[in-house]
Amino acid sequence: MGGRWNIYREHQHICPGDCQELTNVEQAIETVINQFHCYAVKGQKEYLTPNEMRELVVQKLPHLGKVRCVGPLDEKIECMGDPDEAKLEFGEYWDMMGDAAKGCRRK
Amino acid sequence: MGGRWNIYREHQHICPGDCQELTNVEQAIETVINQFHCYAVKGQKEYLTPNEMRELVVQKLPHLGKVRCVGPLDEKIECMGDPDEAKLEFGEYWDMMGDAAKGCRRK
Repeated sequence: MGGRWNIYREHQHICPGDCQELTNVEQAIETVINQFHCYAVKGQKEYLTPNEMRELVVQKLPHLGKVRCVGPLDEKIECMGDPDEAKLEFGEYWDMMGDAAKGCRRK
Repeated sequence: MGGRWNIYREHQHICPGDCQELTNVEQAIETVINQFHCYAVKGQKEYLTPNEMRELVVQKLPHLGKVRCVGPLDEKIECMGDPDEAKLEFGEYWDMMGDAAKGCRRK
């Protein structure tokens, strides 16, 4: 089970087969983590390529896109380097998701 | 509706009353954002005090706590300054949630 996260493993240990007991915030964090793993095919869950990140943004953040919050995200992806070779690690991915959230905040 | 987020407002505009069409990732981001607003009472949704952040961690990240991932979070809250006066803005809050997620990652 390489690459699984301890929050999930431990939760399975605490109450096997019943993940509903994670709080809504823990489930939300897990969802954001899992998306990273889902799209990080080339990097085997260790990193996203720019193209994988772009695919994730298009497919999973369509409304953020519509409110023009992902403009900066697009630019950042563009600046990451070779679309199929550059590596975006989890911390950078989390930061980019935060930028999208912050970018949508009403002034 | 001060302090609401454009992702939500815009979505309401696109399909009023039906928020199910946000993707699971957008809903997850919204959940993390909303928790910040819920607990940021003193700062009127603009910032959390250390005590408010501690309350959020205890109530909303109980399993992360059990797997000993929030040790560093506790330390960070401790270092923030006056428990009722220091201000944790949204960007710092997002970073701390990311630290919790990263802290749980299997090496």
